[in-house]
Amino acid sequence: MNNFTFYSPTEFVFGRSTESLVGELCLKHGASRVMIIYGGGSVVRSGLLDRVKSALTAAGIAFTEMGGVQPNPIDTKVREGLEIAREFKPDFLLPVGGGSVIDTAKAMAVGYYYDGDFWDLYEVVDGKKKATGTRALPLGVVLTIPAAGSEGSGNSVITNTTTKVKVGIRYPMILRPKFAVMNPELTMTLPEWQTASGVSDMMAHILERYLSNTPDVQIGDRLAEGMLLAIMENAEKLIADPQNYEARANIMWSATIAHNDTCSIGRVEDWNSHAMEHEISAEYDVTHGAGLAVIFPAFLQYGAKHNPHKIAQLGHRVLGVANSGDEAADAMAGALALKTWFHDKLHMPVTFAQLGIENPNLELLNERLHKLKGDVLKGYMDLDAAATMEIYKLAL
Amino acid sequence: MNNFTFYSPTEFVFGRSTESLVGELCLKHGASRVMIIYGGGSVVRSGLLDRVKSALTAAGIAFTEMGGVQPNPIDTKVREGLEIAREFKPDFLLPVGGGSVIDTAKAMAVGYYYDGDFWDLYEVVDGKKKATGTRALPLGVVLTIPAAGSEGSGNSVITNTTTKVKVGIRYPMILRPKFAVMNPELTMTLPEWQTASGVSDMMAHILERYLSNTPDVQIGDRLAEGMLLAIMENAEKLIADPQNYEARANIMWSATIAHNDTCSIGRVEDWNSHAMEHEISAEYDVTHGAGLAVIFPAFLQYGAKHNPHKIAQLGHRVLGVANSGDEAADAMAGALALKTWFHDKLHMPVTFAQLGIENPNLELLNERLHKLKGDVLKGYMDLDAAATMEIYKLAL
Repeated sequence: MNNFTFYSPTEFVFGRSTESLVGELCLKHGASRVMIIYGGGSVVRSGLLDRVKSALTAAGIAFTEMGGVQPNPIDTKVREGLEIAREFKPDFLLPVGGGSVIDTAKAMAVGYYYDGDFWDLYEVVDGKKKATGTRALPLGVVLTIPAAGSEGSGNSVITNTTTKVKVGIRYPMILRPKFAVMNPELTMTLPEWQTASGVSDMMAHILERYLSNTPDVQIGDRLAEGMLLAIMENAEKLIADPQNYEARANIMWSATIAHNDTCSIGRVEDWNSHAMEHEISAEYDVTHGAGLAVIFPAFLQYGAKHNPHKIAQLGHRVLGVANSGDEAADAMAGALALKTWFHDKLHMPVTFAQLGIENPNLELLNERLHKLKGDVLKGYMDLDAAATMEIYKLAL
Repeated sequence: MNNFTFYSPTEFVFGRSTESLVGELCLKHGASRVMIIYGGGSVVRSGLLDRVKSALTAAGIAFTEMGGVQPNPIDTKVREGLEIAREFKPDFLLPVGGGSVIDTAKAMAVGYYYDGDFWDLYEVVDGKKKATGTRALPLGVVLTIPAAGSEGSGNSVITNTTTKVKVGIRYPMILRPKFAVMNPELTMTLPEWQTASGVSDMMAHILERYLSNTPDVQIGDRLAEGMLLAIMENAEKLIADPQNYEARANIMWSATIAHNDTCSIGRVEDWNSHAMEHEISAEYDVTHGAGLAVIFPAFLQYGAKHNPHKIAQLGHRVLGVANSGDEAADAMAGALALKTWFHDKLHMPVTFAQLGIENPNLELLNERLHKLKGDVLKGYMDLDAAATMEIYKLAL
């Protein structure tokens, strides 16, 4: 086990009607001028935005707002938000929505104190970020979509609309939300597609931590396996009955701890599937979780041939694969079991064609991937351009 | 799943040599005058105390100290500490040790701002605490014994030497440590007895959360089961080889998350085994974890007859009990499997006699228990005086 720091300071307030507490939570965490950030019309239509504003007003908190954040959040929206913020001078940001809204708010939070264009903090030049953020506006979250886990992480992913580069930043010490209000009732109306995409995203967040060559990380492995078992059980319940509050609650909390480092403990992680997917959603604007359902089984199939150990363990402990004594065969069976589960139980696409991309430009994706990440993607397996191309092709 | 708040703000800094960071961690968390609190001679003999002092000096931090905290920490030591603190006026407390040292520091932290004797905050009168704390000195921890989980909790348990009442307080919002330095190397010299007692304590912390009648808490159940599997695997490694760093590391982290509410999520917990053990260790001054190894299997045996559901699930998923279709029988098999494991693998006592108490005064223990906790202990099972007496007798 490697040395590590675990720091998850967010106050998670979870359960029915908890959004009514947002005013007092803002006060408790020192807010007096709040900028609300949200996405499309659903938070407006559902009345959630009005309830949040009422709670702020009741707490005597001044606020402004910006709506219109899109899925796969973009640089131009961050700049629009920063312009409003520099005018209004908030002391606290309050994203109301899912990962795209939260990630936009985080980009603003750290960009607010940066002299220059915020994109410098995201841009990679010669394998390094062009600039580093040292300070951020504090933020709280009202979560409406369980998927990205951004409510508990210090991460943010933004797409540059000019260069089509989709890339993340990670500041666990300054970008973790102060609080996150999480009411599973707010997720009851999510369509199946969005529910399932969220499930595939949170499972990927766990697997990218699980797939590690660091030895003797049993506590992290067992936590990860437990999360995956709970997620799969409850995801199947939700596909059958989207109105199942208990299943919504289990899924919502799972998404958070899938990404707050609960199962990262002391290991080298592998985020290469995420990087490979980012190229797909940046180019074709597909839903991130759906892209992961396509890439992840392909990644595991490749892994079954080149580094089967953890994939076989996953098969045995989570995916119902009997231990045959042949690690590579069991790993392949595990990879295919996950692919089948994504397709049959979660109704997710598992190929480019099912994702709606009939003729993907794999050369372009692969070229951009290695331009961003270097010649060899290090991780559970070292992937050169030939390897990542093989994985992309396994997803055809 | 019930509504809940999850708040674990402690910055955990884990791994080899991490105690060298204690000076900068104190500075980062706002300390300028620190009171060090520690126990017996081992932190002195090992040189740890000197290393901590050097780190504070290097960071320019003034400090005073109090040693001599005993296992099963007592009220008189808290008062001694408060006297020193009121003279020195620290702005930060730094316990260096295990649960007893940390719990003593927490009692001082909240007692420091209370006008009156700190015991008022612990004492139960008519089923309620005599007084409530609202503010506490911040504290950081250098942990040397993985067991109590106090480094990540807002709890403290103290024994009153006059009345022999052993009782806890719980202030998750003000008593959780700001940071916890956790170096598994510091635990390598723990004798088998202390290692095993710690393992039994952390397993009890998980099981008291796991044993719940709240339905649909799959994510918490799976996390708890995963922790237990990892703990049992690594505990067996440590009994065989106390110098196994990797096993020490897995056990150390498990003890922390066993008690920071990771697996409490949205459920009613059951702390009656802990309460029953507190009467034993308050009267006979036995090691808390060893007392739990005696009480817990007895509690589960009683439970197998009166509410088998979760105990059978534990048997199936953690203790290697095959599903026979007979829930009560499987629960009893699980209870006995845990008892056998405690005895055979962990070398723990599982009866009063093995604990060194040949003729326990069960009437006295039971009378004190119900005087403190009321006629019926509510929880996974409702336990009146006849029920708790039956459990005490099962431990003979």
